[in-house]
Amino acid sequence: MKIVAAQCNFTVGNFTGNTEKILDVISNYGNDADLIVFSELAVTGYYPMDLIERSGFVEEQDRHIGMIIECSERFKAAIVIGFIDKNKGIGKDYYNALCVIHKGKVVFRYHKQLLPTYNVFDEMRHFEPGQLPGVFELNNTKIGFLICEDAWNSESEPEYENKPVKELVDADIDLLVSINASPADIQKHSERVKLLTDKAIRYKKPIIYINQVGGNDELIFDGNSFAINPCGEYLQICDPFAEDVQSVDFSDGTLKVNANTEFNNYDQPNTLTCYELIYKQIIMGLRDYTAKCGFKSVVVGSSGGIDSALTIALATAALGAENVKAITMPSHFSSSGSVNDSKDLCDNLDVELFEISIKDAFDLAVDRFTKSYNQKPSKLTKENMQARIRGQILMEYSNHFGSMLLSTGNKSELSVGYATLYGDMNGGLNLLGDLYKMEVYALSEYINHLNGREIIPQEIIEKEPSAELSEGQKDTDSLPPYPVLDAVLRIYIEHEMLTDEELEKERQIIEQAGFDDIERIIRMVDLAEYKRRQAPPIIRVHRKSFGIGRRLPIVQKTPAIDNITQV
Amino acid sequence: MKIVAAQCNFTVGNFTGNTEKILDVISNYGNDADLIVFSELAVTGYYPMDLIERSGFVEEQDRHIGMIIECSERFKAAIVIGFIDKNKGIGKDYYNALCVIHKGKVVFRYHKQLLPTYNVFDEMRHFEPGQLPGVFELNNTKIGFLICEDAWNSESEPEYENKPVKELVDADIDLLVSINASPADIQKHSERVKLLTDKAIRYKKPIIYINQVGGNDELIFDGNSFAINPCGEYLQICDPFAEDVQSVDFSDGTLKVNANTEFNNYDQPNTLTCYELIYKQIIMGLRDYTAKCGFKSVVVGSSGGIDSALTIALATAALGAENVKAITMPSHFSSSGSVNDSKDLCDNLDVELFEISIKDAFDLAVDRFTKSYNQKPSKLTKENMQARIRGQILMEYSNHFGSMLLSTGNKSELSVGYATLYGDMNGGLNLLGDLYKMEVYALSEYINHLNGREIIPQEIIEKEPSAELSEGQKDTDSLPPYPVLDAVLRIYIEHEMLTDEELEKERQIIEQAGFDDIERIIRMVDLAEYKRRQAPPIIRVHRKSFGIGRRLPIVQKTPAIDNITQV
Repeated sequence: MKIVAAQCNFTVGNFTGNTEKILDVISNYGNDADLIVFSELAVTGYYPMDLIERSGFVEEQDRHIGMIIECSERFKAAIVIGFIDKNKGIGKDYYNALCVIHKGKVVFRYHKQLLPTYNVFDEMRHFEPGQLPGVFELNNTKIGFLICEDAWNSESEPEYENKPVKELVDADIDLLVSINASPADIQKHSERVKLLTDKAIRYKKPIIYINQVGGNDELIFDGNSFAINPCGEYLQICDPFAEDVQSVDFSDGTLKVNANTEFNNYDQPNTLTCYELIYKQIIMGLRDYTAKCGFKSVVVGSSGGIDSALTIALATAALGAENVKAITMPSHFSSSGSVNDSKDLCDNLDVELFEISIKDAFDLAVDRFTKSYNQKPSKLTKENMQARIRGQILMEYSNHFGSMLLSTGNKSELSVGYATLYGDMNGGLNLLGDLYKMEVYALSEYINHLNGREIIPQEIIEKEPSAELSEGQKDTDSLPPYPVLDAVLRIYIEHEMLTDEELEKERQIIEQAGFDDIERIIRMVDLAEYKRRQAPPIIRVHRKSFGIGRRLPIVQKTPAIDNITQV
Repeated sequence: MKIVAAQCNFTVGNFTGNTEKILDVISNYGNDADLIVFSELAVTGYYPMDLIERSGFVEEQDRHIGMIIECSERFKAAIVIGFIDKNKGIGKDYYNALCVIHKGKVVFRYHKQLLPTYNVFDEMRHFEPGQLPGVFELNNTKIGFLICEDAWNSESEPEYENKPVKELVDADIDLLVSINASPADIQKHSERVKLLTDKAIRYKKPIIYINQVGGNDELIFDGNSFAINPCGEYLQICDPFAEDVQSVDFSDGTLKVNANTEFNNYDQPNTLTCYELIYKQIIMGLRDYTAKCGFKSVVVGSSGGIDSALTIALATAALGAENVKAITMPSHFSSSGSVNDSKDLCDNLDVELFEISIKDAFDLAVDRFTKSYNQKPSKLTKENMQARIRGQILMEYSNHFGSMLLSTGNKSELSVGYATLYGDMNGGLNLLGDLYKMEVYALSEYINHLNGREIIPQEIIEKEPSAELSEGQKDTDSLPPYPVLDAVLRIYIEHEMLTDEELEKERQIIEQAGFDDIERIIRMVDLAEYKRRQAPPIIRVHRKSFGIGRRLPIVQKTPAIDNITQV
């Protein structure tokens, strides 16, 4: 049996475009393959959120599935496709479903049983869980279907009553086929492979895993479709971070990959290092966000600091130097390095740099304030004035030239609120908002290493972090050194998701530094929630990022009771 | 049996403060009453969102419940309290629960069976549904407990398999007691009363309904605790929009209200008119948000238009004139009315008004732009420049004087994106973001009527809406008249929640105006999603407001397939 894995980049709600991609694959492979497998919620794209409830949305999906059904008449292959099915019984109005389309007919339907409703997932908001296993026979092969979370119930510590994998095994299937829309974080692919290898070995069944690829808002789907043989052998089917259609042979209970992918020879999955992965994830996230929103170019404020430098370097890698503009905006408090280092960076990247002083606008603002209220603006007020004048200048460029502004705050800064709302937080997307400060450094070094030359100037990497909004200001004036701050933040923000070893490692950093004002840091994080609520979307890299996966009230008075205060 | 309804205003995570309120009520009523009933998730406040998963959070709640248990030893009354219970079995780690505490012991526990996971609710994200009915006997009275959504499964069109009310009736209880954290919208209280009156009559059981009161972020809980007798008689127990503790007698199968509330004589619930309700809801929302965030005062930009005028009037009613400051910021394009009308408004309210021209800053920005890019800024760029300079001036006041900035956009503007990000959208809270433009007018008229004099000048109410960002600019240059726009928006945004009559009414408005460019409006609403994602919290007034209850992707290409295009 020849199975084609169709790893496509779908756009939410783009029925016409998504269906075209699907019909293209069917036309190219439909007479060669026995089975063509698309990803979860393929026609609508994952995740449509409340569009699902929009009047006419599911009907429009059905109309496009109709075209796929019609197309299937002309081909040999059966087609597996994730879609939204209507529930006519009690409960939510819809199922997260898959159907098998063959020779002009829907010959099988399966409803996802386990609906993730945690972190970035909201499936119980829209879907009713299915109750029956997905067993389907094609050409004397018994296929057991799973949809994403269906495979994730743990044998030892189950989180759901239903056990879809066990049910399929009990039904004596020959092959497991899982369709997914699984967003990446830096651990995700190894988790998938580990989980499914365990299942393949335990149940002695081969498994095919087909994933969506591409960015939709803050979620980046890495593709990375793969298979596991009953012996535990890992087979990479499709490339990570790329649209890719590849075929797999199934015979004598074993899967073989035919694909000529460059990743074909992976004997270990995840040879992508951590920073290679982060790099590819951010690049794809930015590319897809701009393309799907209809932007061609971006603009970035260049402070001469590491965050804006890395943002400019990533944007250039994603969109090309001609589509990236930088603006450096010196003030009375800017070091000479802020402009010179920006110039060096942009020279290295061949990015056009504008220099626009904010001195006049700042003086005017201070003067206006003093006259209006008969007093001088406070230090904080003056600091924010500068950040906001810069934010204004960047938005002027964005409005006039139609470039999207990228905001540059990293996760450490956004955590403690070291960012000015309506100033440096301005932007349509943030590339670094899920990278702690020390990761910003590491990714910068990675980019220099990757290019085999200095892209981000060493001066920028080595200078002491400062917002340069007051005379002699340094980040460490009111924060612990970043390695310590990052350790505190990682424990606080990702606590429940860290392993004991990871926790212990962070604890040791804090202990060795002798830092004991953890409660103050926690309070800063909680208080800055109102700022993050108004932040642009952040490309998700870690298991717990700021955005739709972390939902906290603004008004709250929770004491700093977290375990980390007991370091 | 004497039952005390404790309608308290809890703050999320404020264990100490919330517990003090609870202990206070117990101390005052504990020897007089047989049963004291608090609302849903009382100790933690509703809704803690992902704080529930925070390490130590539930333990800290339990420690405070320990204090309540200890306190209960000294009193006669049994105490009913909503709390988070741990689930040691399969599934989510917690239950949304209630317990009965009596004489130093927890004598009963019940786990909420129906978990709302739609609109503003996320309960399946955190809780496992309970499976058993809540039957508890006290002094020979069999009480059936419900938690909020438990009462809402429809007899004719059930949305859940479980039927908690029916189960209690089958268990032959004498009295239904429902504890709630039910946020208000303008229809909500009549829906509640209708629903529970139907149940009381159908099952011949008296029902007591206890609600939380107060604002937590965008959600405003109206209190309005009430009871229904088996004959269908409505009894108002506690005041709407106020903390209130009142007692109810239960004997011979009938409830009697002892309370001396001014609302005692309601023979009809909801004698609050629509605009009275909206007024009270916004006032309570603003008061609680500022108080719970630690602000005493607010600042508002006064354009001379209706939105800022209404915002200033509402803020003054909520916080007192001495805690409201207004700033009028004329430009080259401002009409003389913009300053004069602002003055009249602030005179009427006794609110201090600052006048700060933006002409210099605007000229400087235009000049700077022209020099930097060798071209003149576009019309859009110049318009946004003005809005952002104003946003900057308002934030300078906010930063320096510690007042929270209120943003002033209404629902119609926010829908179509007629608002400048980092400009007039700046603010910590938005009071009008869930009011369509025509409702802004109506609420303004209501305030003038309520005060028996002109608060909001007639000139402001009557002038043609304009952002005054370009010469002669009018909102209707690119939008249909507001009555028509509002009808389109209401159908599009609230479609699934409108009755057939409501839909028909809106359709007629559109038809009579001969407006046929609905698709363009829908596209504007979808495209403006990225702006709303960065907007401050909006006080919720309608069933479907922008914020946590409406979750849409930014990147999406859904065609305008909604039914309303078929008007």
